[in-house]
Amino acid sequence: MYIERINSPEDIKRLSVEELNILASEIRNGLMNRLSKKGGHFGPNFGFVEATIALHYVFDSPKDKFVFDVSHQSYTHKMLTGRQKSYFCDEHFEDISGYTNPEESEHDFFNVGHTSTSVSLACGLAKGRDLKGDNENIIAVIGDGSLSGGEALEGIDFASELESNFIIVVNDNDMSIAENHGGLYKNLKALRESNGKCECNLFKAMGLDYIYIANGNDIAELIGTFEQVKNIDHPIVVHINTMKGKGYAPAETEKENWHWCMPFDPETGISRFSASGENYDTMTCDYLLDKMEKDKKVVTVVAAVPVCIGFTEDKRREAGRQFIDVGIAEEHAVAMVSGIARNGGKPVFATHSSFFQRTYDQISQDLCVNKNPATLLVNTASVYGMNDVTHLGIFDIPMMSNIPELVYLAPTNCEEYFAMLDWSIEQDKYPVAIRIPCNGVIHSDSAADADYSNINKYKVTQQGEKIAIIALGDFYQIGEELASMIIEKTGTAPTLINPRYITGIDGELLEKLKMTHTKIVTLEDGILSGGFGEKIARFYGTSDIKVYNYGLKKEFLDRYSVEGVLRENHLTPEQIFDDISK
Amino acid sequence: MYIERINSPEDIKRLSVEELNILASEIRNGLMNRLSKKGGHFGPNFGFVEATIALHYVFDSPKDKFVFDVSHQSYTHKMLTGRQKSYFCDEHFEDISGYTNPEESEHDFFNVGHTSTSVSLACGLAKGRDLKGDNENIIAVIGDGSLSGGEALEGIDFASELESNFIIVVNDNDMSIAENHGGLYKNLKALRESNGKCECNLFKAMGLDYIYIANGNDIAELIGTFEQVKNIDHPIVVHINTMKGKGYAPAETEKENWHWCMPFDPETGISRFSASGENYDTMTCDYLLDKMEKDKKVVTVVAAVPVCIGFTEDKRREAGRQFIDVGIAEEHAVAMVSGIARNGGKPVFATHSSFFQRTYDQISQDLCVNKNPATLLVNTASVYGMNDVTHLGIFDIPMMSNIPELVYLAPTNCEEYFAMLDWSIEQDKYPVAIRIPCNGVIHSDSAADADYSNINKYKVTQQGEKIAIIALGDFYQIGEELASMIIEKTGTAPTLINPRYITGIDGELLEKLKMTHTKIVTLEDGILSGGFGEKIARFYGTSDIKVYNYGLKKEFLDRYSVEGVLRENHLTPEQIFDDISK
Repeated sequence: MYIERINSPEDIKRLSVEELNILASEIRNGLMNRLSKKGGHFGPNFGFVEATIALHYVFDSPKDKFVFDVSHQSYTHKMLTGRQKSYFCDEHFEDISGYTNPEESEHDFFNVGHTSTSVSLACGLAKGRDLKGDNENIIAVIGDGSLSGGEALEGIDFASELESNFIIVVNDNDMSIAENHGGLYKNLKALRESNGKCECNLFKAMGLDYIYIANGNDIAELIGTFEQVKNIDHPIVVHINTMKGKGYAPAETEKENWHWCMPFDPETGISRFSASGENYDTMTCDYLLDKMEKDKKVVTVVAAVPVCIGFTEDKRREAGRQFIDVGIAEEHAVAMVSGIARNGGKPVFATHSSFFQRTYDQISQDLCVNKNPATLLVNTASVYGMNDVTHLGIFDIPMMSNIPELVYLAPTNCEEYFAMLDWSIEQDKYPVAIRIPCNGVIHSDSAADADYSNINKYKVTQQGEKIAIIALGDFYQIGEELASMIIEKTGTAPTLINPRYITGIDGELLEKLKMTHTKIVTLEDGILSGGFGEKIARFYGTSDIKVYNYGLKKEFLDRYSVEGVLRENHLTPEQIFDDISK
Repeated sequence: MYIERINSPEDIKRLSVEELNILASEIRNGLMNRLSKKGGHFGPNFGFVEATIALHYVFDSPKDKFVFDVSHQSYTHKMLTGRQKSYFCDEHFEDISGYTNPEESEHDFFNVGHTSTSVSLACGLAKGRDLKGDNENIIAVIGDGSLSGGEALEGIDFASELESNFIIVVNDNDMSIAENHGGLYKNLKALRESNGKCECNLFKAMGLDYIYIANGNDIAELIGTFEQVKNIDHPIVVHINTMKGKGYAPAETEKENWHWCMPFDPETGISRFSASGENYDTMTCDYLLDKMEKDKKVVTVVAAVPVCIGFTEDKRREAGRQFIDVGIAEEHAVAMVSGIARNGGKPVFATHSSFFQRTYDQISQDLCVNKNPATLLVNTASVYGMNDVTHLGIFDIPMMSNIPELVYLAPTNCEEYFAMLDWSIEQDKYPVAIRIPCNGVIHSDSAADADYSNINKYKVTQQGEKIAIIALGDFYQIGEELASMIIEKTGTAPTLINPRYITGIDGELLEKLKMTHTKIVTLEDGILSGGFGEKIARFYGTSDIKVYNYGLKKEFLDRYSVEGVLRENHLTPEQIFDDISK
């Protein structure tokens, strides 16, 4: 196999186009081996094999520098830069991450996982180069889906101000994660259909030079064009038309389903993962479809990740004009739901905790300064969520809960989650965010409260003495276990509290606890720094009450085991019991 | 005067074009009266008088809904919607804010002060209308400067998905606050020069219908065009070419200086405000110019507010290619400085605290996950900063200080600020943010430390006992006053600490304090919620030490007096002394 002999990109420069095509086929075998057994981003990688080979054939990495947007299409790049074992040898799967990673290779410049950042990061590399008087090529690779993100559009608009070498490869496969949304995709279509000749051209309108490659999976054509732009003295867009999932029939046909995959049988394409039992994605979707059916003013909004709340293609069709996918445009989504609420609609916007990070200012200014009653559903906001360093769901409590006027709710079980969601949609006073539970679908025997308009009123679920456990959201169950352990080991029942509101303090209750309690334990599923427990510590700062805050350390975790992280942060009931017994 | 008889927009519909032109002149008199005496946004309002009159003449506000971007051009709108007294009668100046404000009028739909939000907010109004089956016109008004912001570009891209009435008025005066930056401005120029006929058209490339008005200060032409698009059944951009500062010669000539003004003499245009003594804008600029002169790898980056660190036009020219204004594109700026640092440059990015809110995700993902050594200068980050609800500088501590890997520094005086800045530029290990002091230029007798690489090491500036005061940044001086008061009233000197690092705890020092202290007072210039003091409260939560946290309540303040806010938050030395003496 050729791939075995590729120790660095230098080694592919000696191959003929025919050999490079064989190499491409070997690379797809490597991708298939890893993806079918471990899962990962399928379509983006299968579609970008030839282009990556051509890039490395023409440019001289790491002197020339590639920045991959999201970097979920960088698997071929990894194989060509000494990491092929992690695709062909199962025992080396864990050596690498699913994204570019400077710790793995000198050919990777950034740890990237969010969309729409490549152009700006690469502009920085180019400016650094110019300040030093160096002359390498800087190449940003960005997919069409990522183009709609504000950060990418800002970067593309700025790029023309660089009066030096800068190459933006637009990898256009006519798909985002799901279908694209936004007017610019009409222009990309016109450009593809006119072989790049269409006069109205988004990239030229942003001040950039432009060149088009119709067959972005043709190595020879790609090499020819990249050689043409190598060492260019000004910024240029190389717009290439590739096929997402190229080389695997199921992925070529079912592009959305094959954007990312769980382990599967390569023969049939059937997933080895069968979702059994209930999950919040489907339940949230069903709830919202029913709600929208009954009330035409309710509207569900997502930003390119419709399936994060179960809106598969059929469900989107069912929802009709009461469902909006804005594409990758989280800032727009939050501002828009504020406007919808202002004009009498009842909007619900859902995305992942990590992607809400794009919207701090919009939550603050567009939504909360204006106190509009929109609902934000914060998904995978938990240590039990995604565990890549770029997708962590453990920062949203400090990020969002310190914004004035926002009511941020943390349900502790299924019934409470849907009760909160229903209350939020129907009320018209507050911007509300809700953390979708992430620790499994846990049902409660007791009915959930229907009304949450008594803001910051905590719920005492077990009245006890001496010790009070304030257990927020997904960590409520740890609180329950701890409570059982305390009564078992000490004979005295502690008080257990479901605080429900992340964004405020129940001063009256906390004051009352002083009379019969000496220790308060707080539990939260996120970092402690800037979070919920510290507010309780501040409240009791001048009193004799001892406050024990439990949550996660402020750090960028990466590919962790939940069990390990919980243990390191003293989050098992045993560890907590030991701590507070000292 | 006609303006006296305008009680609502209905009243202008009865005037002839000739009378409307007289009205425009009266409105400019009102603007001049308020702006020359009170200050405010000059150029944006003088340039948009005719267009506002025409909009209100053609559309039926408040049924038809206007959303003004930044809303710093909404003064004429305010005059035509019953608030003219606040321009003509000095005693009514304080009745209104400088931005649209729903609390003032049913003609205002959002409280807006940040850029680039109008299209998304208005998309929301349009979607709300469609859900309800209503049929009013929705009009977003956005200046050319705001177009480069990611939120605006996301909104414009999305707008074409609305299959219903939606009108975007692009008020193109060929200026941002300073000159525009970004490739799209070349396209706006081409559109202006071709009378809107140029084939390559940014707005059409974003999927939108388009119409051009060459003379955006001609009421008749504007009325004709707005009548043409009124009740249109799809989204359209109405691109109008206006003159910023129109009607006042100094403002027409010196557009940047007249974007916003302090009180001035209308006869001469000379400001009544003379900056006396030192200020951090000029000092920061001088320091950076000198640094850049000596080290060609240092580069200063701003996002449309160059003067926030003193970079007036002449200074920008002096800095040459070591100065970058990215235009309104804060997300791009933070990602780019990460890239510059990654490739050997030494970047410093400065903007206002409130505008850093646009960059939470970029600080987290693009910068801190990658640990690149860029410097962020956070301006007007203080209760002493800007006091409009949309420009508050009291939220950056919770927003930024809970992001892992960031080193956020709070200098307590001038010498310490420049020492920190110099250290930050020269070090290559950490992303660093620095709060530019905002409580006046205070000099220190003692030399500032040069090295801040011993991360989270607090500085004991006065060793005492019983009470320790940890006084952060701009509130250090309150800490000094409190310390003096304590020794004076009790005879015992307290310990005074300058923590310097907002982002971490000096555990060793805090542990040691336990031995000889019983009370800890923390002081911080920002909201307490999620901030610095709560981390100290958490540290001492399980000990016998009493912790008193002082800072601001979590709330959206608006047009406050600093003295009043300090008093309400118990932030005078007297109040604190009383509290801790109880």
